[in-house]
Amino acid sequence: MSERVAIGLDLGGTKLAGALVDESGAILARREQPTPAREGPGAVISAIAALANDLAGEARAKAREVAGAGLGAPGPLDPATGVVHAMPNLGEEWRRFPLGERLREALGGTSVHLENDANAAMQGEAWIGAAAGARDAVLLTLGTGVGGGIVASGLLVRGSRGAGAELGHVVVEREGRACGCGGRGCLEQYSSGTALARQAGEALARSPGGALAALGRAPTGEDVVAAARKNDELALSVIEAAGRALGVGLTSIVHALNPRVIVLGGGMGTAAFDLLEPIARRELFSRTFEASREGLSIARAKLGPDAGIVGAARSVFLARARAPERGLT
Amino acid sequence: MSERVAIGLDLGGTKLAGALVDESGAILARREQPTPAREGPGAVISAIAALANDLAGEARAKAREVAGAGLGAPGPLDPATGVVHAMPNLGEEWRRFPLGERLREALGGTSVHLENDANAAMQGEAWIGAAAGARDAVLLTLGTGVGGGIVASGLLVRGSRGAGAELGHVVVEREGRACGCGGRGCLEQYSSGTALARQAGEALARSPGGALAALGRAPTGEDVVAAARKNDELALSVIEAAGRALGVGLTSIVHALNPRVIVLGGGMGTAAFDLLEPIARRELFSRTFEASREGLSIARAKLGPDAGIVGAARSVFLARARAPERGLT
Repeated sequence: MSERVAIGLDLGGTKLAGALVDESGAILARREQPTPAREGPGAVISAIAALANDLAGEARAKAREVAGAGLGAPGPLDPATGVVHAMPNLGEEWRRFPLGERLREALGGTSVHLENDANAAMQGEAWIGAAAGARDAVLLTLGTGVGGGIVASGLLVRGSRGAGAELGHVVVEREGRACGCGGRGCLEQYSSGTALARQAGEALARSPGGALAALGRAPTGEDVVAAARKNDELALSVIEAAGRALGVGLTSIVHALNPRVIVLGGGMGTAAFDLLEPIARRELFSRTFEASREGLSIARAKLGPDAGIVGAARSVFLARARAPERGLT
Repeated sequence: MSERVAIGLDLGGTKLAGALVDESGAILARREQPTPAREGPGAVISAIAALANDLAGEARAKAREVAGAGLGAPGPLDPATGVVHAMPNLGEEWRRFPLGERLREALGGTSVHLENDANAAMQGEAWIGAAAGARDAVLLTLGTGVGGGIVASGLLVRGSRGAGAELGHVVVEREGRACGCGGRGCLEQYSSGTALARQAGEALARSPGGALAALGRAPTGEDVVAAARKNDELALSVIEAAGRALGVGLTSIVHALNPRVIVLGGGMGTAAFDLLEPIARRELFSRTFEASREGLSIARAKLGPDAGIVGAARSVFLARARAPERGLT
């Protein structure tokens, strides 16, 4: 049995989750609460600190040493400085926010390792999930938006300012839909759960009919997936379009990174994996070199919503292994 | 003065080049000869071995210790196994060819470190060229085709089978021109020297006129650049289209990798840098997050045709530093 544990934390726009994770990746205790996002950074930081302290108490009760805390946060950030560039889902006050430093203060000097939430999820899946054992892997989380994570030669690719692996903003339609990032035609505009709902709504407006029209309300992404499973024609055509766009985005990603495993996660990516994967694979394989796709697999994420917590904990263990003097006990 | 040297080799479809490179990146001696590509693998391997042995003799004459040999080759390959997936410019016989092993035999047991040529050029530029000091960088070589190299966290990104960094095959036009890779709308089809020439030829066929029509022959990429410098309207519009496509491709690359430096190299990328860069930058900056482009620069390659030789030599020094027992003296 592992003696050390890390506190893995996952900060979302609506939910704050945390767990004690041991060195094998097992979760020993977990906590979850709403994120007090509307109350501003001070309240959010206090909530994170309280949750972390609660888990630290639990660790003491289990006679485990706490190696440190890791936090996955929903925005581009620099793990080296602990500065968050922005967290749009939590509000404007978080632009260029020194979250690492403020959390360290709130935790009485305990250092906190920050990671972008999708990078943390990639780290989790690469550790004990669908990409375990792969030194080159990518993760796409298809949910409200599309997030991404990259592992190359066994290391997380964070980029020069921590803004790397934004794979939802790979361009799939050059003059396509405007995206919140300022660009056009980003993958996120075609293959997210939000995109599925919007495309179904647009298709219904053009020609109402089928299971989705019978709902009598605007369909959600989940509705589209459920209707597709019942062979609803309109839902199937929306899924086909999303899967093909995903394959186009994956083409650029695969040519750039030559991963061994592509992991599809997030709410929609996990729930609709069996529907989307064959379509995306067909598109991808029709557009790539043999050398790029040799040995390549596309896998459903294994860790579900725990990926970020587990990956954030993994970052703590890895950081300790690299620089033990910076950890905490 | 550095005592050790490496033999850096660059295998091209028409030309074979090599040099003695010291640990500061300085070239102490160089050789160049035509590649006997038509005579098949045996003749090419003999030519490489003769050139390497010649340079080894030169090293002895200069009383330098040879740390090993590194070769940049024009195709996807696996540096770990020394197997080349394919080298289309050298012929069909090279598919899945054990080039590393065959070269080692030809060199009497000397180990040879193989690297894809664009990756070797990236390594060279990241060592002592336009990306020196950047831990996150990409290289695009715009020439006959478009090659790519990626450095993330200071390490070359080769991918799971050595087929990574094929940045010429990032998709910029989803239903665009068919590409030799099997896909459609790849960057290479819009921003290579070949694409420049083809697009100028097509534009001339539609409406003949200007400096390029006056040539009385099909324009080359160089012709287009020369005419653009004289403000020829047709040439400027071809450059504009190539630069904008480059910006679209860079958008996907920057969102995925968040590099600090983008290096443009290759014959066309170097010669037309001042024409292409402002157009590509404008397109890129209109499509990206602030966090992704913060601190980003686009730089002209510094090492020219030496980048591959210097980078292949660098791979030898790095491999020796990691595993000294595998080197040679």
